[in-house]
Amino acid sequence: MHWLRFRHAGQTGFGRLVGDQVEVHHGDLFGSHQPTGQTLPLTDIEWLTPCQPTQMVAIWNNFHALAEKNSYATPEEPLWLLKSPSSFNPHTGLIPKPAVYDGRIVYEGELGIVIGKTTRNVSEADAPAHIFGYTCVNDVTALEILQRDPSFAQWARAKSFDGFGCFGPVISTESPVASAEVVVTVGGRERQRYPLADMICPPARLVALISRDLTLQPGDVIACGTSVGVLPIKPGSEVTVTIEGIGTLANTLAAD
Amino acid sequence: MHWLRFRHAGQTGFGRLVGDQVEVHHGDLFGSHQPTGQTLPLTDIEWLTPCQPTQMVAIWNNFHALAEKNSYATPEEPLWLLKSPSSFNPHTGLIPKPAVYDGRIVYEGELGIVIGKTTRNVSEADAPAHIFGYTCVNDVTALEILQRDPSFAQWARAKSFDGFGCFGPVISTESPVASAEVVVTVGGRERQRYPLADMICPPARLVALISRDLTLQPGDVIACGTSVGVLPIKPGSEVTVTIEGIGTLANTLAAD
Repeated sequence: MHWLRFRHAGQTGFGRLVGDQVEVHHGDLFGSHQPTGQTLPLTDIEWLTPCQPTQMVAIWNNFHALAEKNSYATPEEPLWLLKSPSSFNPHTGLIPKPAVYDGRIVYEGELGIVIGKTTRNVSEADAPAHIFGYTCVNDVTALEILQRDPSFAQWARAKSFDGFGCFGPVISTESPVASAEVVVTVGGRERQRYPLADMICPPARLVALISRDLTLQPGDVIACGTSVGVLPIKPGSEVTVTIEGIGTLANTLAAD
Repeated sequence: MHWLRFRHAGQTGFGRLVGDQVEVHHGDLFGSHQPTGQTLPLTDIEWLTPCQPTQMVAIWNNFHALAEKNSYATPEEPLWLLKSPSSFNPHTGLIPKPAVYDGRIVYEGELGIVIGKTTRNVSEADAPAHIFGYTCVNDVTALEILQRDPSFAQWARAKSFDGFGCFGPVISTESPVASAEVVVTVGGRERQRYPLADMICPPARLVALISRDLTLQPGDVIACGTSVGVLPIKPGSEVTVTIEGIGTLANTLAAD
């Protein structure tokens, strides 16, 4: 099943995506919910982020191919940062240019794990029951801010400008197939294509290990990290992130 | 005025602190609100965090004395990280020991700025109108996690364990007096006493500069950074953070 949130006629709602229609539901996406009987064509809605995370945990250095290319050591545990909730941006949302940064802005296509229930200190065996589903993430990054100050790596800042946390369009409740790839295009040209199977710390293990560090809430998102092929986005270009079985997230960087 | 949130008889509420009584209010602390007419003695309430931030922005290296002691360069702009909302902990809340970390846990007494309205790209002159008030912060930190991985400074993780984001007891709507100090005791012994006037980037400037990076929401907290005197907390010890005109925040680290 594919779930989405939307705005329609001044109201926000959520529902199941069936073909090009939304079967509107009421209740709690992560709890009890029922169809209202209403359906809406996708062309009539404004996309919202498919859930409202209290936090987005973003993993660094989680793909073998990228680690090898950059000569990163394989991390002994997930290395993570937090992206600000003010960065969250739905499918079709414009990515504004930061007011105070004029350097390179890069895309990072990623798999996002969506948590389904309060998750604290769970085992890897129990973790799948705490995963509600999966989404596509574009972990947009202001590249030159990261290491601008030699004394303090500015991970949160470089990745938290308004609109830099793109995710959606939907949450798929199915796990990605074993052969699934993350495919990113920029202005129609393919720029990333990497297999999820190359992940160093896979989803259930990520959820288990991160749940020892902090308590995850329903709707929280873990962005699993990216692999090779990250490049700057030309202002005005559309970036798409496609994962088989989930869908395609599309966002455009504002023109100069 | 001093504002607090509380739980009483199974309900959460907020109100003004007057002596040892809470004048209960209804409405929105950051918008329209009125007294209900009810008052509650402080002894009858359970303390909650005085607001519910969507994010806590924590500043690193923001006091001259600490920078000098550690030979840090004066930063050209605020250097910040995000603390997880699952770390938030009210006055009197126990700080649990992390399940997966057995190293030193340190206190950091700090001034917290509480944002009053949506704040995006404001000038330093306009920033004070966006500040609702001030609170005390204990930015608890798992010291040995910070630099455990040589390739990635784990700021968010070291500062985001459950209960590591202590703030309160109240929000004071008055600016701290020019001579105000942050005073920290551990087990009754004074461990930090430093003047707010030694701050490198003061509150209005912090709000202005951070509001160029991200959009701040009502209730968001900026923890202004700490100064000299940070030491490990012995398990079972109570840590207090006192700022004149605001109050005293007290939290105990769980015993072994």
